[in-house]
Amino acid sequence: MKISLGAKPVLYPTPVVIVCTYNQNERPNGMAVAWAGIVCSRPPSIGISITRKALTYENLLSREAFTVNIPSEIHAAETDYFGLVSGRDEDKFEKAKLTPMQSDIVDAPYILEFPVVLECKLTQQVEIGLHTQFIGEIMNVLVDDHTLTDDGVVDIELVKPLIFSSVIYSYYALGDFIGSAFSIGKSIQGDVKRIGK
Amino acid sequence: MKISLGAKPVLYPTPVVIVCTYNQNERPNGMAVAWAGIVCSRPPSIGISITRKALTYENLLSREAFTVNIPSEIHAAETDYFGLVSGRDEDKFEKAKLTPMQSDIVDAPYILEFPVVLECKLTQQVEIGLHTQFIGEIMNVLVDDHTLTDDGVVDIELVKPLIFSSVIYSYYALGDFIGSAFSIGKSIQGDVKRIGK
Repeated sequence: MKISLGAKPVLYPTPVVIVCTYNQNERPNGMAVAWAGIVCSRPPSIGISITRKALTYENLLSREAFTVNIPSEIHAAETDYFGLVSGRDEDKFEKAKLTPMQSDIVDAPYILEFPVVLECKLTQQVEIGLHTQFIGEIMNVLVDDHTLTDDGVVDIELVKPLIFSSVIYSYYALGDFIGSAFSIGKSIQGDVKRIGK
Repeated sequence: MKISLGAKPVLYPTPVVIVCTYNQNERPNGMAVAWAGIVCSRPPSIGISITRKALTYENLLSREAFTVNIPSEIHAAETDYFGLVSGRDEDKFEKAKLTPMQSDIVDAPYILEFPVVLECKLTQQVEIGLHTQFIGEIMNVLVDDHTLTDDGVVDIELVKPLIFSSVIYSYYALGDFIGSAFSIGKSIQGDVKRIGK
């Protein structure tokens, strides 16, 4: 039986990433963001939603660049910490013992220890409500070499991403492989052509 | 060592949902969407990105409403199938043996068999590139009663969501509980106030 819960921001799974920017004084800052999602394949683009009071909000407007740093499950405590405090109060990189590196491509730092990093240039800003969505074009993806398959493709099982559950505020690991996309549905598909991807 | 992969749409984890709309002839349609994410807490809003050639694109413009249907891992084949074919070619609900129900709140159908459904009213349309992002206000969340804890909260471990991996095009299950958000980072946090959530 279906129960109505009212209006809530719910999605399963939800990612959790650290968005890194430079402050006006050149100090690297990062904040944990769960309201994030890919918004376009060409040009490859990601949207991240931030409140106006975040230091990252100011930084995005002045630098027009950011990185999206995808944590492994071993970085759960550090990721959580980046959502607990403001960069106005402490140097989060120093406290969390994470290393900020200057991106070669965009005017933003990234986290050396995180396995996957998206280097993004701000392209659009969408006012929605409490949150503003910043859309960035993904100019390059940096990955740790140990997350690649022999074919040079990123393997999510080697990334071991952290999965966030809103509502109950919990972190989970990735589970078992279920099946291949654009494949396991063929048992249901009729004799029609596949739509273009 | 970090390797550059170039510009790609990558995020871990990525959700996979079925977005349901009505065609102009009142027939329910659904399509699998991975480019989705929560974009605002107040009003609770979700963004879904769709290409212009999708039937859902037309339907969204004419009906200005949609539902986001979150599959359980048991619906992996049905979800994949909804991404393999176009509603112009076959009645996907009939083929997949899923039941379209009329939402009481918005002018769109939802999938009876899926555990979590967001009933959304279209509020904004953002042109990005190959994909257009449609932002919808989540007017209500419908959940199966068996996914609720004793406290009436949705438990992700009972939803058992499907997790999509772009790049290698695979589906995964949810894994083990790692820790509580806004909590496990406190071991790193200094003596500063927590930022408002």
